[in-house]
Amino acid sequence: MDSLTRRLFEELCRIRLIDPHSHIVPTSPASTSLVDLLGYHYFTELAHSAGLAKDRIVESRDEDLVELLLTHLEGVTNTIQYSWLVEIARTFLDYDDPVISPRDARLLFERSIQKMSDPNWTEHVFHATNLDAIFLTNDFDDPLEGFDSALYVPCLRTDDLVFKLDDPHVQNRWRKATGVEPTRMEEGLSVLFKRFTQKGARACAISVPPDFSPVRPSPAKALMALHALQQGSLDRSLREQASHAIFFAIADQCEAFELPFDLMIGVRRGVYSNGVYQGQDLFDQRTSLDQYRALFNDKPRVMFPISVLTHMQNQELASFAWIFPNVVTCGHWWYANIPAYIEADTRARLEAVPASKQIGYYSDAYKLEFVLPKFNMYRRSLARVLANDFVLARGWSEERSLQLGRQILRGNVERIFRV
Amino acid sequence: MDSLTRRLFEELCRIRLIDPHSHIVPTSPASTSLVDLLGYHYFTELAHSAGLAKDRIVESRDEDLVELLLTHLEGVTNTIQYSWLVEIARTFLDYDDPVISPRDARLLFERSIQKMSDPNWTEHVFHATNLDAIFLTNDFDDPLEGFDSALYVPCLRTDDLVFKLDDPHVQNRWRKATGVEPTRMEEGLSVLFKRFTQKGARACAISVPPDFSPVRPSPAKALMALHALQQGSLDRSLREQASHAIFFAIADQCEAFELPFDLMIGVRRGVYSNGVYQGQDLFDQRTSLDQYRALFNDKPRVMFPISVLTHMQNQELASFAWIFPNVVTCGHWWYANIPAYIEADTRARLEAVPASKQIGYYSDAYKLEFVLPKFNMYRRSLARVLANDFVLARGWSEERSLQLGRQILRGNVERIFRV
Amino acid sequence: MDSLTRRLFEELCRIRLIDPHSHIVPTSPASTSLVDLLGYHYFTELAHSAGLAKDRIVESRDEDLVELLLTHLEGVTNTIQYSWLVEIARTFLDYDDPVISPRDARLLFERSIQKMSDPNWTEHVFHATNLDAIFLTNDFDDPLEGFDSALYVPCLRTDDLVFKLDDPHVQNRWRKATGVEPTRMEEGLSVLFKRFTQKGARACAISVPPDFSPVRPSPAKALMALHALQQGSLDRSLREQASHAIFFAIADQCEAFELPFDLMIGVRRGVYSNGVYQGQDLFDQRTSLDQYRALFNDKPRVMFPISVLTHMQNQELASFAWIFPNVVTCGHWWYANIPAYIEADTRARLEAVPASKQIGYYSDAYKLEFVLPKFNMYRRSLARVLANDFVLARGWSEERSLQLGRQILRGNVERIFRV
Repeated sequence: MDSLTRRLFEELCRIRLIDPHSHIVPTSPASTSLVDLLGYHYFTELAHSAGLAKDRIVESRDEDLVELLLTHLEGVTNTIQYSWLVEIARTFLDYDDPVISPRDARLLFERSIQKMSDPNWTEHVFHATNLDAIFLTNDFDDPLEGFDSALYVPCLRTDDLVFKLDDPHVQNRWRKATGVEPTRMEEGLSVLFKRFTQKGARACAISVPPDFSPVRPSPAKALMALHALQQGSLDRSLREQASHAIFFAIADQCEAFELPFDLMIGVRRGVYSNGVYQGQDLFDQRTSLDQYRALFNDKPRVMFPISVLTHMQNQELASFAWIFPNVVTCGHWWYANIPAYIEADTRARLEAVPASKQIGYYSDAYKLEFVLPKFNMYRRSLARVLANDFVLARGWSEERSLQLGRQILRGNVERIFRV
Repeated sequence: MDSLTRRLFEELCRIRLIDPHSHIVPTSPASTSLVDLLGYHYFTELAHSAGLAKDRIVESRDEDLVELLLTHLEGVTNTIQYSWLVEIARTFLDYDDPVISPRDARLLFERSIQKMSDPNWTEHVFHATNLDAIFLTNDFDDPLEGFDSALYVPCLRTDDLVFKLDDPHVQNRWRKATGVEPTRMEEGLSVLFKRFTQKGARACAISVPPDFSPVRPSPAKALMALHALQQGSLDRSLREQASHAIFFAIADQCEAFELPFDLMIGVRRGVYSNGVYQGQDLFDQRTSLDQYRALFNDKPRVMFPISVLTHMQNQELASFAWIFPNVVTCGHWWYANIPAYIEADTRARLEAVPASKQIGYYSDAYKLEFVLPKFNMYRRSLARVLANDFVLARGWSEERSLQLGRQILRGNVERIFRV
Repeated sequence: MDSLTRRLFEELCRIRLIDPHSHIVPTSPASTSLVDLLGYHYFTELAHSAGLAKDRIVESRDEDLVELLLTHLEGVTNTIQYSWLVEIARTFLDYDDPVISPRDARLLFERSIQKMSDPNWTEHVFHATNLDAIFLTNDFDDPLEGFDSALYVPCLRTDDLVFKLDDPHVQNRWRKATGVEPTRMEEGLSVLFKRFTQKGARACAISVPPDFSPVRPSPAKALMALHALQQGSLDRSLREQASHAIFFAIADQCEAFELPFDLMIGVRRGVYSNGVYQGQDLFDQRTSLDQYRALFNDKPRVMFPISVLTHMQNQELASFAWIFPNVVTCGHWWYANIPAYIEADTRARLEAVPASKQIGYYSDAYKLEFVLPKFNMYRRSLARVLANDFVLARGWSEERSLQLGRQILRGNVERIFRV
């Protein structure tokens, strides 16, 4: 890293964070041992991909699992995901080697338990991460209790409603949560949105497969499709129509309750059927934001922060956000969340999308310790783009470039999600 | 910019330009005030995307519109499009700030009127831009009168013929322009091509949607489809066949009259239905040059300078131009016209496509003042690629690299379009 | 090239090579004159693309052909393919100009004959290239005789079986090679795999079109489809089912005989029907590795080294190799084999795929002299990525970075193909 990029990076690190998407469990936000860290699907799936049998992961516990995973992760030290682990070990576990030796498994496991059992550990991680608040991912029937929503901001996740309401179990969860039948979609959603917003929710979210192409059915067709769903119909076209009806009904509530609707576009679930937990999903590059044309036109007052799963789709995202006032670029998601793609995608967005319509990054973390290394990865890429494309290529001052960085990293999160 | 890149950039700027595609109106080629500049759809659509209501743009006039747009453009100063405005203000309006303050709206508006009312203004812009000639975009029934075709080179635009000849109004325009019925396609086109080439036309052009996949119908089917079109048939398959028949008939005339056929591939019109004027079109990345396989094989003697709307399709373009003698890479279009994509696409083209088959750039401008900043953006990217990939990585001399640049920027335009 | 990159490049060049994919003819592996070099399809197709008529290539011989091609290649000296020729001329023909003058055609032609007629020429090229062994591409009925399989490693190419067994001529070749009817697919393949592995084969390979989407038919349906094939049925769906059945039967044998199955994905044959020999194939970017989902799940014990034809599909490849233990990234193929794409694709793979699952490069060469310049092109890109992304950005030592390079370039080839 040259000195200009380093200076910009260090300034970007001073900006206090609000992390607008994660899977943190607010009642146990931080890790309790190294097992929690190594259990992150990025590590189990990479170790498995490099040769570790799934059974051995499932059957091992504690120090054994730590040693097993560290041993197999030696085959993936080239990956950027491994570098997150190294950065966590350095920052939080006083371990400064570039490769974490399996011989240190026991030592590190014990050290992690000792440190993480400190009652102030969560506070310590928040502080070290410069973190003000972090968004959650909450099931529609989440009680939303037992945490401070100023720190942990609820977000209504709606995948189950749109894609699994054909499941009688999910229908029962719906009935309990809303007090109405699934056919009374609008009424039930209104109950959910009211509860969520009263509990401090600031976003609604969904992840969708690459071939999802929602068109709003007429009210009569929507009702018919919901009836069919409730009666357990297996008719594919009716189920699709029910999905579309629910999807648009959620968008309606987003408008009514003034919640942005995060769309996470492109994941196909369960592609590798014998993969490890959370390591089975992939994608299909043959997808287009054109599939959401009807939605963007239909709901001009709803903001859609959009994540795409591929670097290839970034130009569509940048172009749709350049044209549609209600489309916002959002973070760098999953398979596109590596510096090779982050940097190229950030460059294109900063050249083509209004600054106010870009949410730079979210951690997508399951445990708080990952927020720091993941944001650092992003901040390094952002610093490089600001240095090369703005300070050097376009003659911007460092201060002006940093203002742009602040807007992307923090300002837009506050404004768009109204936190 | 390092000193090598700067030297190359400055030499590239000395090459006199022939701009092979624009939307200049030859009877009023330059702007008459700052309103003409700010009215460019890039600025209205970005201001709208950043929050400015369409109605306010439509209803405001003159100084008010200037102030309104400058105010809202403060939210898009990060975009490369904004940098064109800054460069125009510096070059043509003696205004040297990196952000154009809305407080200077009145001053700049008045200054622009004063300068642009100079009877030599157009000449001045031509001179400052180092511009020898610029191609136009002419409707098929354009009278092509009142301008010097040595400076303003006509180009027959055929979108209306291929995609709108089902419209009775367009049919009437056709009858007036050709003297024959639409069913007599070949005869009518021959009249148009003769008129255009006599008036100095050097190209035929069309923009096509991402799902256009033309196959030449048999003469009998073509005639049937044209009859159906004329009689107002709404049959979708007949209308598609008519489109294909007209498209291939145009390609036939391109061969007969030795005109290159510019294909601008991938735009979907009217995606954002409430967008500002010219700010409604987008694209779908699911498209392939394979859709033009039949055409390229069928018309080996017609040159096809091709623009693609996405960075993703650039590899197809480079590969088809590498294999097909009649396929030529052409410029960096619209949503792909940002340095992040220009630079990557230029690199791939220069590594894989014969130098003689690359048309580096065109401005696509509506007003002459935009030719300079848009070409400068391209020349900066080209200079970077020549410096890094040729001088540094491959050991080429600067002079040899610049010869390549000259061929791309000027030589090929002269040869391919025979100007 | 900066000094760090140069140091890494020079160290990478010291690693002895095993080239895991080529089209070398083991009984005449090296060139016998400059005609063999210039006859490589990259040069004939680029010269043709730049304007040389196909007939003139076909009709010319020896010095005339050399002069003709060198004359027309002056129009493609910008391409990276031309740089291979320059590097060969410098390394093997004592010719050190950056452009090979057509005036030197006779001199170089004669010099090439003189040098290449040396009985040790092949040995000399092996030595100069630092090459230990090179994989071949063998038809299923190749006698596999007359060469040393320690130097020339057989590989069973199966395109004819999967895509051309409807041809009676291919059926006869099958009967001769296997002794059984095509309907007895498993039995016949077993004969072939036994013969190939006994002769030292280390891989099975196939190239597939972009729309191939294989699903294993039931045994009954497979048999029915093979019967129909044998009887000359033109039913498209039956032929497709036969293709799928054969494809999966080959994968079964790969498992039984522990051979990796190289998939080369995305080529469409004969797109430019009047192109020069081997210069007619292109691709369609609308393809996905999702089409191989069933295969990857069905055959967990078969390793699939995968080449994709487009830079766009590289993220899919990196992501599938990140998740599936049996998916391996393999080289940089054909239209994606230019530094602009090699470098970007290498960066993404090194950031996201376990190091042990990446085969860096293969030459795909038809003559041995091309192995050196093609690997050098790759090694320059790899050196740049190691320098920028690992030594500079991530603080790796040069030695550790080079270990990664060694694993990619050599170690994985040995381990995955068990050579």
